[in-house]
This record gives sequence, structure tokens and C-alpha cells, in this order.
Amino acid sequence: MTDRNRLIYLPLGGAGEIGMNCYVYGYGPAGKERLIVVDLGVAFPDMDGQPGVDVIIPDIAWLEERRDRIDAIFITHAHEDHVGAVGHLWGRLKAPVYCRRFTAIHAIRKLEEAGHDAGQVRVTLPWPEAVTVGPFTVQFAPVSHSIPEASALVIDTPGGRVVHSGDFKIDRDPVVGEAFDETLWRQIAQDGVTAFICDSTNVFTRHPGRSESQLPEPIGELIAGAKGMVVATTFASNIARLKTLADAGVANGRSICLMGRAMKRMVTAGVEAGVLTNFPKTLSPEDALDVPRENLMLIVTGSQGERRAASAALGRGSYLGHELKEGDMFLFSSKTIPGNEVGVARIKNALAEKGVDVIDDSHGFYHVSGHANRPDLEAMHDILRPRILIPNHGEYRHLREHAQLALSKGMTGIIAANGTMVELSGNAPGIVDYVDVSKTYLDGTAFVGALDGVIRDRMKLALNGLVAVALIVDEDDVLLEDSWVQLRGLPEVTNGGADLAEMIEDDLAEAIPRIDARTVMDDDKLEEAVRRIVRNLCLTEIGKKPEVAVLISRLMAA
Amino acid sequence: MTDRNRLIYLPLGGAGEIGMNCYVYGYGPAGKERLIVVDLGVAFPDMDGQPGVDVIIPDIAWLEERRDRIDAIFITHAHEDHVGAVGHLWGRLKAPVYCRRFTAIHAIRKLEEAGHDAGQVRVTLPWPEAVTVGPFTVQFAPVSHSIPEASALVIDTPGGRVVHSGDFKIDRDPVVGEAFDETLWRQIAQDGVTAFICDSTNVFTRHPGRSESQLPEPIGELIAGAKGMVVATTFASNIARLKTLADAGVANGRSICLMGRAMKRMVTAGVEAGVLTNFPKTLSPEDALDVPRENLMLIVTGSQGERRAASAALGRGSYLGHELKEGDMFLFSSKTIPGNEVGVARIKNALAEKGVDVIDDSHGFYHVSGHANRPDLEAMHDILRPRILIPNHGEYRHLREHAQLALSKGMTGIIAANGTMVELSGNAPGIVDYVDVSKTYLDGTAFVGALDGVIRDRMKLALNGLVAVALIVDEDDVLLEDSWVQLRGLPEVTNGGADLAEMIEDDLAEAIPRIDARTVMDDDKLEEAVRRIVRNLCLTEIGKKPEVAVLISRLMAA
Repeated sequence: MTDRNRLIYLPLGGAGEIGMNCYVYGYGPAGKERLIVVDLGVAFPDMDGQPGVDVIIPDIAWLEERRDRIDAIFITHAHEDHVGAVGHLWGRLKAPVYCRRFTAIHAIRKLEEAGHDAGQVRVTLPWPEAVTVGPFTVQFAPVSHSIPEASALVIDTPGGRVVHSGDFKIDRDPVVGEAFDETLWRQIAQDGVTAFICDSTNVFTRHPGRSESQLPEPIGELIAGAKGMVVATTFASNIARLKTLADAGVANGRSICLMGRAMKRMVTAGVEAGVLTNFPKTLSPEDALDVPRENLMLIVTGSQGERRAASAALGRGSYLGHELKEGDMFLFSSKTIPGNEVGVARIKNALAEKGVDVIDDSHGFYHVSGHANRPDLEAMHDILRPRILIPNHGEYRHLREHAQLALSKGMTGIIAANGTMVELSGNAPGIVDYVDVSKTYLDGTAFVGALDGVIRDRMKLALNGLVAVALIVDEDDVLLEDSWVQLRGLPEVTNGGADLAEMIEDDLAEAIPRIDARTVMDDDKLEEAVRRIVRNLCLTEIGKKPEVAVLISRLMAA
Repeated sequence: MTDRNRLIYLPLGGAGEIGMNCYVYGYGPAGKERLIVVDLGVAFPDMDGQPGVDVIIPDIAWLEERRDRIDAIFITHAHEDHVGAVGHLWGRLKAPVYCRRFTAIHAIRKLEEAGHDAGQVRVTLPWPEAVTVGPFTVQFAPVSHSIPEASALVIDTPGGRVVHSGDFKIDRDPVVGEAFDETLWRQIAQDGVTAFICDSTNVFTRHPGRSESQLPEPIGELIAGAKGMVVATTFASNIARLKTLADAGVANGRSICLMGRAMKRMVTAGVEAGVLTNFPKTLSPEDALDVPRENLMLIVTGSQGERRAASAALGRGSYLGHELKEGDMFLFSSKTIPGNEVGVARIKNALAEKGVDVIDDSHGFYHVSGHANRPDLEAMHDILRPRILIPNHGEYRHLREHAQLALSKGMTGIIAANGTMVELSGNAPGIVDYVDVSKTYLDGTAFVGALDGVIRDRMKLALNGLVAVALIVDEDDVLLEDSWVQLRGLPEVTNGGADLAEMIEDDLAEAIPRIDARTVMDDDKLEEAVRRIVRNLCLTEIGKKPEVAVLISRLMAA
């Protein structure tokens, strides 16, 4: 290793998955680079993979060990998968957090909730304002996305210019916020771009992206035709959509009521940051009760089927005094994120049972994506003409497709999933190292490693059920024949009508006298022997091998 | 109630959900109707709702109580959601099973596996052959679908003619099996149709359905361009697709190898039933190892992401000696059923990591649905012109949309979800009763009711983890201070570094002396007291309230 300076890129989250974004850039001699962090996001757990977990955050062990080399944290925008972990992780990194004003409102709240110093958040103006930290000069270049003030980062180092796209789309008329500014991007490209780290979410979508400004017309027509109450749901953070929906409601003689904590918080933040102007006057849920339903429009949270959000509550019954009925209309102005289909369908079905007309994209054109589709990705490639393209913000198949697209256009496309360190500088840029990265689960207040086995054990309980067995070894080291058995998540009665717990106790009473003294003296061996007896009986009786917890109480001579 | 005869319809599964089809028709005086059963299908569980369950079957308690009135069971086609429960449930109904030959092969195997008399399966020829049982005359009218010999049932009674569509699409050139025969359907409609019970799966899909015969060309072109091994997956039962895929492989100089038990079983059944002719010669997986990869095509199971199927195995590593690598191609000639998205994406990502080109419908036109799209549903409505249309085979939102479509066309559309009994005859047909129906889970070999709480308890274990506590009450009714604690699915060590199980034991040792004697004497009260102590401590230490199993051993005086 020489002491020459190098420019490196290392994704710790968000590359090889969608969610939990966390990227590192470094510049300096190998192993001594100064570092900046881009985004500290969360991912959301599901029953299939992380039951009971509150939120998934990046594994930042590598960063934490190098904390003294971190010059700053940059947050591209205020979506949870980019800013959501800043409260959970800041205390382990303790570097200043740079972001734009709307994003800062959210970052500050998260730091405060976690008991950290909100003064660490430094509000930054967009391009051409520049932040210089260590060897890095960073500018926030506005992009359009589905939240205000989303930004790409233009990162200049002595090793070259990197453009980190963040989440973006090309929208020349985004209703709220900054339109795509081709002149700006051509200016950024002018002196050469070493590497473009680019959003890959929609690389499989072949038609050009559509503009937010195409929505007011069809949504207005839909509401104009509604006879009862109108309810619309979308992501709370999609403030442009909230405005489109609310404006369409008002234009059709409806008062607007926002429901759901996140929704009100986002609108307040939008007004506070100055990005949301002319949002119609809204009624409180209570005041809205006095409005005839044909003059009312609710805009609510829960477009992804979240069980605790307003949409799900309205599906189940009434929410804050409002109840939907035959002839009302419910609009999903949103896309269902893969994995949420069943939860969203559950709400649509519950609403249909109430006689509500449920409208979604299968009925017309009521949503546009916040991510660049394939032709728009190509347009950005063509403007920036980077030496290297590294796809991020995608599952592995998105990264591969995007890298192949880059190759087909004469760029160097490098697939770098989480933990892959890429040198961007030098004569032969490419992968230089692999770092072990896992994921961290926030489970209640405990941090649990994804590989710790804790959650795997919970899934085993869910799949197999549990038999708990209490045994007593008396003062003379004799294992008593009586055991106490409890079942969890197993049928109490077999198909034959017998009590399963009693059968297990009887079976153990018969087997225990045959367990030899050496086994009785050894906790592990005794547990294993009892587990085997219980599992074999259950396999015979109910066709299942349950988990078995054996609790051995050893009585001491008084 | 008079003794006039009535014609009734009662769905027990499949109406208000997709899967687990089971419908009842009855004719006779109210409460004394003779009955026939149409389909006995299963639904598949998921981690989100039924962890560890093997399969979900209809709750047939209502039918079982009226077993003496059941004249026959009819199976429309051999998909698992129509025939899958025949082995599990036949013993409780014991009526002859009528179906066409290809379906019979599967029904017979299922009866045999369950130890029932396979002779109960009566192979029936299609229209105009008729089966007369009790007051019913039933004809199997061929429809196109994604499996051979799918049939609608034309059910004639003195109360009128009912057409039960089964799963169907309109395909005038289905590659394998019977084409849509408009003349036949006009003939069926000629004398008037009282009720049309109709598939609703694709009611939200607005473009006309596409024919299986449109696929050979694009699939052939795709394979012609492949450089390495080609693997394709689809539903094993979609024999037309298997033939399309295999023919395209052979036409491009490739030997064909089928992988996965279900796939081989289906092809064998297709040949045996005479519906599959000219299927190319296939190689065994072992012999296929000798074929150069550019001359080989594997057709494999697992298009829905099933972890144990061939597709998943090839994603993880090698399967039967075959391993995919850079430059190979993997085609999903299938649609992902809602709920399976994450599992399918897992395989696609694993394959992408190996450098395999994963092709699906986002790349072109490689799949057609087996269900009638909205315009095709309308075409069937227009041919049959039924007095009543009752949507089935759909979630509630599908049923509602389909009923509204019927209304908009001047028919009487009745939404009848599982348990809704509809009279089809008389002057004012409509809902006449509601029957309590649940679902039954086959869990190992045990039948568990969906409302029994067993599976709900397993989900609680998955979400909250478990603390098992063993306590001893001695011969003098004194609760010993020592307890024995085991954790399952909880972090062993708190964020502060303490051993959680030990903390619980210490906390209990402190609390136990304060538990009064009356509580100690009462199992329920003592359990509740201990549970509260444990949950409060855990809430403080790890921010979670776990499930708690308390095992109280009461020692008896010797």
C-alpha cells in the first residue's frame, strides 16, 4: 500500500435492498481516509422476516470504529428510509448533520426524541451553496421526488467529482417544489463526473416517468363524480399530492380534513419550511363531523395498509367519529410497495364490504412514481456522462439491470452491494475491499443483530409452537417423575380427543425413571433427553415437532 | 315456511377470498334440500396470518351436519384451490366425486393418500354427457383455463338452470385442450339461465384477455437469443405453457429437462389423460448433466417463490447437480400471486447475484392469465344473459366490482360471501340465510379452527418472544424464592450489558416474599402476579412485554 490518496465509496445499507439507506464516501490514504456519511435510514420489518421488530437500521460497526475520521453526515431528503435512523444512530457517530430546511425539521425532531443535541443539525441551502468538511465540498442539487427539497449531492474531492443522486425523478412541473433543471445538471456535468451513484428503483419500468402535474385533472374529475364522502390516502410526505388532492376537493365544493399524525406533521413542516403555500384551509376531524358527507373530503394516512393508521381504522369501523358507508368513495392515490399487497387488500376488502367504492390505479390514472423510470435514468446518464456508474437504492436485481444498462451505453457499471468498497479514483477504479455488514433490529428498546438468532428463535416459535416443561431434581439428585407441562400455540386436544399436555406429562412420567443418573446431573443432556421425548410424542399425536423449553429446578439440601 | 321447493346457493369457501373453493347447491323444501358440493379446495397459509400451518381448508361443519342430504361432489378442475381438500374432507362427507379424467387422476391420488376409497371418483365425460343425482342433472362444459379439462358446470334442477363458471378464460386457441366454443355456450343459454355463478379474479383488468397461442413467438425469440443455460418456471399444472416452453426450447436446439415433483406428475397425468400429445422427449436431471449448457433447457417448479421448490434451490446453489452462472437465463413465465412478491423477489435477487439474466413480464410478453378479464366476463354475461349473476372466486372487492358490473348491464347482481345462502328460485330471489363459517387449519396432522386461538398464540410468540418461569410451591404451601427462567426469542443481554434471565430471577426473588398466601394457593392468581412482575421488568429493560409461561410445581407431602 502506498500513501497515495484515494476516493472510495462504501454502501452500508440500501444497496441490495430497498430501504435503510446508508452510504460512506472517503478520501485520503488507504485506511486513513476522511469520511462522510450520506443518509441514515431505516427499513420496515415484516412478519415473514422480522416479527415483532420495530424498525431495521443499518449495521454501522465499521463506521463506529472509525468515528474519529467522520467529518459530517449528509441527509438527502426526509423519507424514513433516508433520515429515519438518525436519532437511533447519531450517538454512535457524533458528527454534524447537514441537510436542507424541510429535511432538517424532521432530523431535529428525531435527534430531540432520542435525547441528542438538535444543534448538530446544520441547515444548508441548495446549490450553489457549498459545505466544505475535510477534503469534501458538498452541494445539495435539487431533484424532484415525492417529498419536498429532495436533493442529489455533488461531492467534490481532489480525487474527482461524485454525484450521488439520492431518490429522484425527472419532473418538469412537480406541483410543489423544484422542477427538473436541465441547465443546472449540464453545468454540474461540465467539468466531468468521476462517478454517478444512482437510484435504481424503477430501472425495470420502461415508459418515461409521468409528471405530478398530470394528476389534478383526473383526480378532479373523479371527485366531481363522487356522491358521498370522499376519502383519499397517499404517503403523508408526498406534500405535492396532498395539495393536488386537497385542491381538487375544494374545487368540487368539499371541505378538507387531514387525518393521521404523520399527515398533519408533514403539512406543518411544509408550511414551516416555506415549500407549501396556498394549502387549503383544513377542518379538524371534530369540526368535520358537522359537514354534510357530500361536502367533505378526508385525506388520511395508511396507504400501505398499516394496521394502526387512519385507512385501516376506517376500514374496520369508525375513526374519530367518522364512518364510511354505501356510496362513499375511497381513493388510493399511491402505489403498493412490494410486500404490502396483502395488508392493502385487507383494507380495500373491508371498505368494499361497507359498500364503499374503492378506487386505485386499476380504475384510472391517480398516481405517479417518485423515482426515475428507465428512460429517465438514461437521460441523466446522458447528461452527466460519468466515468463510472454505480447503481444504488435497489435490490440486487435492480443493481444488476442498472449496471448492465450502463455497460450497454459505454460507461463502467459497477455492482456494489452493501459492504462492497469501491475505489472511484486511480487508473483502474473498481472493488477494493469487502466489509462485513449485517443489519440491526430495534426490538422494543433493545438493539439486536440480524444474525444473533433472537428473531430466528421467534420465527421458530411461530412455526412450531412451544411446549414448556418444568422438572424437579430433588435434594438427593433424583429427577422427580412429576413434570408440569404448558403448551403455547399448539392444539390443547388431539384429533383423537386426548388432552395433549396431560399426555406429555404421562409420557414423561413413564420415561423419567429410565433416564440415567449421569444425564440427570447434566442440564444440557437432560434438556436434550426431555426435548427428544416431547418432540417424538408430539410428532405422533399432532404431526408436529414443537420447540421445547425445559426448566430444571434443582433443589438444594436445606 | 311452506313446503315449496327452492333452489339455493351457499358458498363455504372462495367467495370473499381467492382460494379454498367450496360451494353448495340445494334443491327441495327449505331445510330439506338435496345438496351437491362443487369443489373442495385448499388455500395456502402465510407467515403473516397462519405461521406453521400446512394448509387451509374450508370449514364444512354445516355440510357435515347434513351429510345424509348430499348427493354428490363435483370438481371443476385439478388446481389445488379446487381439488386440494378432497383427501382431507372426503371422510366427513362420503359422497361420490364426479370429475373429468385429468382431474380424476389428481382426485384419486388425494383420496388414496388419505386412505379413502379411490373408487368413489367417477370419471365423467364433458357436455353433452350428463350426471343425474337427486334432483340435479349436471354437465361438464369445457372452458379454457391454465390447466387441462377445466370445466364449467351446467346444473339443471326443476328450479332452473344454474351455470357455475369455475375458473375460466376465453381462449380460442389455447395450445392444449379445448378452445372457447361460442356455439356451445349459446346452446347452453338458449333455454334461459336462472343464475350464473361467475369467476371474478380479473374483474379489475380492463383489457381483453390474451391467448396462450400468442406466447410461442416471443418465448421462442427469447430462447433463440440465449447464450448459456435456459431455465423457465411456471405453474406445474399449466401444461399448455409447459408445452409452449418445451417446444420453444427444442426448436432452438435445446434438450428439455423437467425438475420438480409436481412438474413431472402433471406431465405424466396430461399424457395419461390423453390431453398432452407430442410433448418433446425429456432428459432426467442426471442425463442432462452431460448436455452442454447452451443446448439445455430446464423447466422447473417454484414460480411463486416456494422455498422448497426447484427455483429457490437453483437460486440458493445447485440442484440435482445443476448450477446456474453468469450468462445463463431464467424466465418467469408466470404471474406472481399477491402475497408472494417478497418470496419471488428473493429468488430473482439470488439469481441476479449469480450473474443470471432474470426475465419476467417487465421484459416482454411471456405470460397470459388463466382468468377472464373484464371484457371477457362481459362477453360471457352477454352470451348467457342470466337472470341473476353471483360473483365468486374473488376477494370481497372483486365480488362487489363484479356485482356492480352486472347491475350496470341490467342483471340482478348479488354479492354472496362465504356463508351467505341465496335463493335462486322464486319470484324474489335473494339472500335467505347466513351460515356461520370459519376456516380450518391443517397444522401438522391436527385440524385447528381459525378461531380457536392456537395460531393467534403462535403469532403472539413471534411478535413478543417468551419468558418461561418455573416456580415451586413446597409441601407446606410456601412459594420458594428461587425461580428458573428461560428466554425464547428475546435478547439474552440488555443494552446495559446485564443478563436478562438472571435479572428476572433476581427480581422475582425479591418480589416473591411479598406475594400473599391466598395468591400462592391459586394457580391463576399466582400466574397472573408473576406474569405482571416479569412483563414490567422486561418493559423497563428491553422495552417489550413478552409472553410469559408460568409453570408452578406443587410438591406434595411425601
